[in-house]
Amino acid sequence: MSSMVQTLSSMANTILDQSTVIAVTVFVALLCACIVIGHLVEKNRWANESIAALLLGLASGAVVLLVSKGQSSRVLVFNEDLFFIYLLPPIIFNAGFQVKKKRFFKNFSVILLFGIFGTVISFCLITLGAFLLFKKIGITSLTMKDCLAIGAILSATDSVCTLQILSQEQTPFLYSAVFGEGVVNDATSIVLFNAVQSIDFSNIDGLTALKLLGNFLYLFFTSTILGIAVGLLSAFGIKTLYFGRHSTDREVAIMMLLAYLSYMVAELLSLSGILTIFFCGIVMSHYTWHNVTESSRVTTKHAFATLSFIAETFIFIYVGMDALDITKWKESNASAGTSIIVSLALFALVLVGRAAFVYPISCILNCTKQGSEEIELKKQFIIWWAGLIRGAVTIALAYNQFSSSGTTSANVDAMMITCIIIVVLFSTVVFGSVTKPLIQAVLRNNANPLTSGENDFASLEDLRLLSLENGGAVDNGNNQSAPRRSKLQLFIRHPTSTVHHLWRKFDDKFMRPVFGGRGFVPFVPGSPRSAAEETSDLNNSN
Amino acid sequence: MSSMVQTLSSMANTILDQSTVIAVTVFVALLCACIVIGHLVEKNRWANESIAALLLGLASGAVVLLVSKGQSSRVLVFNEDLFFIYLLPPIIFNAGFQVKKKRFFKNFSVILLFGIFGTVISFCLITLGAFLLFKKIGITSLTMKDCLAIGAILSATDSVCTLQILSQEQTPFLYSAVFGEGVVNDATSIVLFNAVQSIDFSNIDGLTALKLLGNFLYLFFTSTILGIAVGLLSAFGIKTLYFGRHSTDREVAIMMLLAYLSYMVAELLSLSGILTIFFCGIVMSHYTWHNVTESSRVTTKHAFATLSFIAETFIFIYVGMDALDITKWKESNASAGTSIIVSLALFALVLVGRAAFVYPISCILNCTKQGSEEIELKKQFIIWWAGLIRGAVTIALAYNQFSSSGTTSANVDAMMITCIIIVVLFSTVVFGSVTKPLIQAVLRNNANPLTSGENDFASLEDLRLLSLENGGAVDNGNNQSAPRRSKLQLFIRHPTSTVHHLWRKFDDKFMRPVFGGRGFVPFVPGSPRSAAEETSDLNNSN
Repeated sequence: MSSMVQTLSSMANTILDQSTVIAVTVFVALLCACIVIGHLVEKNRWANESIAALLLGLASGAVVLLVSKGQSSRVLVFNEDLFFIYLLPPIIFNAGFQVKKKRFFKNFSVILLFGIFGTVISFCLITLGAFLLFKKIGITSLTMKDCLAIGAILSATDSVCTLQILSQEQTPFLYSAVFGEGVVNDATSIVLFNAVQSIDFSNIDGLTALKLLGNFLYLFFTSTILGIAVGLLSAFGIKTLYFGRHSTDREVAIMMLLAYLSYMVAELLSLSGILTIFFCGIVMSHYTWHNVTESSRVTTKHAFATLSFIAETFIFIYVGMDALDITKWKESNASAGTSIIVSLALFALVLVGRAAFVYPISCILNCTKQGSEEIELKKQFIIWWAGLIRGAVTIALAYNQFSSSGTTSANVDAMMITCIIIVVLFSTVVFGSVTKPLIQAVLRNNANPLTSGENDFASLEDLRLLSLENGGAVDNGNNQSAPRRSKLQLFIRHPTSTVHHLWRKFDDKFMRPVFGGRGFVPFVPGSPRSAAEETSDLNNSN
Repeated sequence: MSSMVQTLSSMANTILDQSTVIAVTVFVALLCACIVIGHLVEKNRWANESIAALLLGLASGAVVLLVSKGQSSRVLVFNEDLFFIYLLPPIIFNAGFQVKKKRFFKNFSVILLFGIFGTVISFCLITLGAFLLFKKIGITSLTMKDCLAIGAILSATDSVCTLQILSQEQTPFLYSAVFGEGVVNDATSIVLFNAVQSIDFSNIDGLTALKLLGNFLYLFFTSTILGIAVGLLSAFGIKTLYFGRHSTDREVAIMMLLAYLSYMVAELLSLSGILTIFFCGIVMSHYTWHNVTESSRVTTKHAFATLSFIAETFIFIYVGMDALDITKWKESNASAGTSIIVSLALFALVLVGRAAFVYPISCILNCTKQGSEEIELKKQFIIWWAGLIRGAVTIALAYNQFSSSGTTSANVDAMMITCIIIVVLFSTVVFGSVTKPLIQAVLRNNANPLTSGENDFASLEDLRLLSLENGGAVDNGNNQSAPRRSKLQLFIRHPTSTVHHLWRKFDDKFMRPVFGGRGFVPFVPGSPRSAAEETSDLNNSN
């Protein structure tokens, strides 16, 4: 028998590359383990899937290190393409697909302020801090360009972990503010990073900043428009061609592929794929999702969530496994003390950089807005805290900056990568596990834990009144008995609600008749209504 | 504006590898186009998605060739890993997941005979034919080993295209026979291919054939057992841990990942991953699928089908695009005439090789079995015809054999690859488009187009009677009024039904209580029953 096995092994796998097979097997097995662990610790408020994945990744990295006798801890080499092309798109698309749209757009100004100005402030502070710091420590081989890159790298928050920590149901305002900021922040920091890489430092003038601003605006608007266009195309195509007539699978496939196509086209045109696919997801859940058959609705809702979930877990395992990359640690050549000091300093810069924009911007928002929208100090604290986590985007950018810049200062480059990995690991494990209980503790003392939720109901009520007043489509029955308020009064009290109301009117009159959407697709008799109701939480916020 | 775009382009995508982005974008766009075309030609009986994908792939290959001015037609290099690790598993898993299990196991003996002995006969004939042929044409640089490899390569039928051409509903016997044969055939031809690659030709004796047989049996049984074990593990785990309690996504993710893990572990142990994941799919649809929540059932059913569908279409685009690989054509150095003659000769060998086992084996089956199970001449013809298509497995094996065997006979190697690609293209386009109408034409003349379906009903009826007789669980109500036949009589008339009945008793008594399954999972009140009923066609054949 053993000789037969031997014969088999010798004749086996002349076809497949054995190392790829091993790597994929290990990752799939770890993913399964993470899911089981995540299920078992579901009720534990300190642990979650990300941390389990990170620790499992670290552990298996250590095992590989021991087995290979200190030669290598890497089963897969960290690959930016893998991350940006295959793992990130499903996560961001699903976030857009499942986001509570009304809530998101209500906080749009907050999100934009935090995501754009906040990131720029944080970038400037971290760059300045890193510049001064490295001078003081005595690391001279880092140029101004490297410091600028560090500023951009450490300004990129981790929207993936945020999604796991904050709950869309329990803390809706915080979720939409912090996660929305994360999406816009991604775009901003990638623009900044690309700008830093291409700017000619011998020739800086006042125009440079203006150019950067122009670039950002161009990127922001074209990316958003591209995402919306692809989303509308999918809605129109599925409505017109009526794929469900022949096959549910084609509907699901075309939704998936078009969403992915929007991301890839954005990347191809050097736009922000993240912004594009996020808005594509929003448009798809608003229009396309209502045009497909009932089984496709259930399938897309859960399949997109599952894919996103697998990609998230994969990233954390990957980051954990990558942390023990022994060659980087050897190359870095720095003492443990120096590494720790630099990491601590970088993390302190992250803390300060984020505080420097969360509190001021919140104050400005509080001053200019009505009392009901106020961001209290506690919430400011949570926004600051929850956005401190750094993740895979940071690592990917760090590798990009410091792994191919030549051999002149290889050990400093390696040290920067290891220090950034320490920052990412520390922030993910510590902040990832502490944040959930912290939010509960902070908000429990609050008399009104769901203040923002109540605001939401209040403005929803106003919206209903407003549409009643105009003879809108909502609840036409009780038109007479409803109390009346003046339009102007409503606009002053809730400007966003009014904008939302105008959008709804436009949507009902022009958009939905063309692109479909809830209530604008003929009900197919015999299709299971209950499945639609079960999944109707996707609509709650339309 | 143009200067800004220029600035952007220059500063853009310092992060991603541009060629990967282009390749992925092109493929996703082509996939979208294929789906739309496939939808539009749904009613056309000559065209289908595979052919559309193949032609689109060819067309885009030509475009790339023109754009690059004859330098290269390849956007992606054909990669066996991509095919075997990422594209094939979802297709075969879905086939196992959606196969009508009762039908499949009823025809199990037919499938095994065709899949094992048939493939071996075809292998021997094609090898012999190729050996004689190349001698006659004057190609002397091909060794005996190469001829044996050609035999194995051209014996691998394409189960993917078969799935699209034959309908499980309209021609259930043919579907299960031809597709089932395809799955077993894959295992057989890969075993043969690996064996050919590792056999020491200087030292062949009578033991070699015995060793090969031993290898095959070892491979067949361990692969099957591994697949069944992973399937049962998933059923037991999901039933015990009850993932659905917290999250639907975890259930879907764990099913997907465990199925994939079974494939990868099989490949790692040098078993046949195809057999393993096929049986894993069967077990999962029999047990695991019934243990998950209703939304997970809808999701898994459609998501697996969609993934498989995308992978299939991708493969055909890929094969089409790969066909115009200009460097291979240049290298081959052969005149168009020689290429066509060799291709025709190879295809003739495929025709003869398949005829040489389909008709004899069918005759043997007809002689040993009762009249009701007879494989008529028309059906024999369709089995022969539908299995002539050669696909991506053939191309992958051909690349493996002829692209890395050194430089001594590079142009003959290149010619072999181009000829095999011609055979694959020709068989897929011609047989893919002709087979559907042909089957309709052949079976329309038949007085009983659904003979096999009626056989099925007959034996189902017998089965019911059998279980009534034993006071089985099926339809206990009408026990008295049913006519009685003796057990022995039934066993002689329908041996497979009796085996099936015994299996059902065992399943109900021992398996389902442990692993769950239909009727053995408590119904969750409030879950939408209609969705379950809608998807109950998955169960029809349990």
